[in-house]
Amino acid sequence: MPQQLTIGLFGFGVVGKGLYDVLHSTSTLQSWIKRICIKHADKPRPISVDHFTINPDDLLLDPEINVIVELIDDADAAFQIVTTAMKQGKAVVSANKKMIAQHFETLYALQQEYNTPFLYEASSCGSIPIIRNLEEYYDNDLLRSFRGIVNGSTNFILTRMLQDNLEYNQALLEAQQLGFAESNPALDTQGFDALYKLTILLAHAFGVKAKPEELLFHGIEQITKQDAQYAMEKNYRIRLVANARKLKTGELAVFLLPQFVASQDLLHSVVNEFNAVVTESSFSDKHFFQGKGAGAYPTASAVLSDISALRYDYRYEYKKIRQAGDVILSNDFYLRVFVGASRMTMIPQDVFVTVEEWHNGSDYAWVSGIVSAASLKTSDWWKAPGISLITYPDAIQEEMEYKQISQRSLELAGVRSLH
Amino acid sequence: MPQQLTIGLFGFGVVGKGLYDVLHSTSTLQSWIKRICIKHADKPRPISVDHFTINPDDLLLDPEINVIVELIDDADAAFQIVTTAMKQGKAVVSANKKMIAQHFETLYALQQEYNTPFLYEASSCGSIPIIRNLEEYYDNDLLRSFRGIVNGSTNFILTRMLQDNLEYNQALLEAQQLGFAESNPALDTQGFDALYKLTILLAHAFGVKAKPEELLFHGIEQITKQDAQYAMEKNYRIRLVANARKLKTGELAVFLLPQFVASQDLLHSVVNEFNAVVTESSFSDKHFFQGKGAGAYPTASAVLSDISALRYDYRYEYKKIRQAGDVILSNDFYLRVFVGASRMTMIPQDVFVTVEEWHNGSDYAWVSGIVSAASLKTSDWWKAPGISLITYPDAIQEEMEYKQISQRSLELAGVRSLH
Repeated sequence: MPQQLTIGLFGFGVVGKGLYDVLHSTSTLQSWIKRICIKHADKPRPISVDHFTINPDDLLLDPEINVIVELIDDADAAFQIVTTAMKQGKAVVSANKKMIAQHFETLYALQQEYNTPFLYEASSCGSIPIIRNLEEYYDNDLLRSFRGIVNGSTNFILTRMLQDNLEYNQALLEAQQLGFAESNPALDTQGFDALYKLTILLAHAFGVKAKPEELLFHGIEQITKQDAQYAMEKNYRIRLVANARKLKTGELAVFLLPQFVASQDLLHSVVNEFNAVVTESSFSDKHFFQGKGAGAYPTASAVLSDISALRYDYRYEYKKIRQAGDVILSNDFYLRVFVGASRMTMIPQDVFVTVEEWHNGSDYAWVSGIVSAASLKTSDWWKAPGISLITYPDAIQEEMEYKQISQRSLELAGVRSLH
Repeated sequence: MPQQLTIGLFGFGVVGKGLYDVLHSTSTLQSWIKRICIKHADKPRPISVDHFTINPDDLLLDPEINVIVELIDDADAAFQIVTTAMKQGKAVVSANKKMIAQHFETLYALQQEYNTPFLYEASSCGSIPIIRNLEEYYDNDLLRSFRGIVNGSTNFILTRMLQDNLEYNQALLEAQQLGFAESNPALDTQGFDALYKLTILLAHAFGVKAKPEELLFHGIEQITKQDAQYAMEKNYRIRLVANARKLKTGELAVFLLPQFVASQDLLHSVVNEFNAVVTESSFSDKHFFQGKGAGAYPTASAVLSDISALRYDYRYEYKKIRQAGDVILSNDFYLRVFVGASRMTMIPQDVFVTVEEWHNGSDYAWVSGIVSAASLKTSDWWKAPGISLITYPDAIQEEMEYKQISQRSLELAGVRSLH
């Protein structure tokens, strides 16, 4: 028989409030929120003040409460709450991608040690059930890759830039006005939010416990109107895409970078605040999941699905972590990239293994070619102001032949002569 | 710890052979096929003859075999195998949609009685993990609807008809030549295959145990080139769409009919042999799942995911069946439909509650308007040769006002005068 759940809720922002609404419209769940812990006791609340406390222990030490739902912004405070709850043997649901990504190893160990479930479907791609599908449906041996648009704010901004021919700042402003970007948007636009999600997805897709800072990533702040113009001429869109793909060596190529997306790509149609993930596995080919990636109700409904799963004693088995001794991250691959800049001299040509094409104009120049992932990982010329790096649709180039490399001096001579 | 599985396999056609290949490329599964039961001992086989038997009891009564995988075509024989296996306490995996849909009630009861898991992800939408997601992720209170393209053959035929301006028979022939339709295609083209899948999805989405023959359905055999022409003029595509939607009364409107799909519809982009499902729930809005709906490897990989799940003691909880005492099927709704025919006189106008538009030409006529679902369910004028009925994108019309009904005589007078 399903369990009765008595919930202690941390946080009553838009998602917490959303969860309260959703839970109260779902009688079959037989779950109720006993107490809500908030930071500021004196804010006006839409429900009776009796529900609230400012003392975390009122929830964490209440033996009747068997589930803690953590929906606060502060990742450090969330980590305290979540770990304390687990040590008390309580099941925990969280949507805090930063906290989970940064403390994955510890949180994984605590689940084993205290034998208590910790679910966090809402932490990645909002309401899309992607963690559960990666965890349950795709065997590690068969899953070849996943690619995803995992941040709604940046996707909204990029959509507007390409669709309405806006500058980055105009598109950002519109996103903020419509509530699709925070007033401090850096966490989204610099790629951190997507990076945390990618880190979490890696664990469930391939059993890789990576630290966010190990991964090659960048946000979208440096994408220009000219880059968007180039994309449109080629019938591409630009998306911030999280990529993880098994190389022929069995190692994993992982990166989160702006990418040109061609019209036949399933991610091409993913616009505005939507999120989507494409998985590819050896026998079932491609699967495409799309849904709303953010917002109070989509996030609350993902939290709710975790609550619902807890009633049936669901927990992540982390099968792939247990199996995956041998799946390791690699920087030993090449990327086909486009590098735009306001002047050609800003683009260091010696970083290219092969230059394929270049273009120079009075206020915009670009070079396309092959760079090594390792060299991007260990340098930051491409993150400098005025430079935009965008991968091509066929981003990953596994094998670079000597022949191509030998063309390099030839090609570069051509580029240099333009300076 | 995950269980070791020893599998007895029934059937070694393309899917059975596919499963054998897939299983042997997946070392982490720690599962092996001990014995394969086939019908004809003397067919040449790609693997050693020692693997095979023609006696079902060699598998069903072998105590070492703890999982029976049933992949044969014959639904009656499959039912015998599956029920015997369950009574022996063996876990069962099947892809036989006809058998499952027709005997759902019995198979459900046997799972409870013998406390043994029965999984059948491969029975619906091939490799797309749709049953598992409906079962696990969407609470009954919150799920409002699902719509799906659940048959690859018909979708391939419709795609070709619209894209290449082919007649139905030409498109069917092409589908057969490419292996996307059987030499006897009636099961697909008359809608039965999709109907069985819809029946299964209803149980997991809404907890409704329907009989296939209770549902309003039709296939695509009567769609003409002229219908396709009309669709293209309106910027629609035609798809065979399985629909289930909660009405305002809480009852469920269910039908499987050819439908015009508008360009903003997520199903518009689902072409050729692909399958897709769009779910809609109260708080998470729409989710879109797409993947290959058929084929040996996609089907085998869905079977494999069930095998993988059995290792972790997964079984369908059928939570919604247990909760859903009150979700019942309704025919008490209206459909906005297009009816095409070679002559206007073939279209009985008195079946329309409201006629909205009509067109008459020398060899093609059509009428669009509102019909009651109940009247379609209890009549078959619309299944007669030469008639094609296609629902509009806004197919379900819940409330028909008297005002509109009173327009009927007026409108019909107009139509009749054309005869």
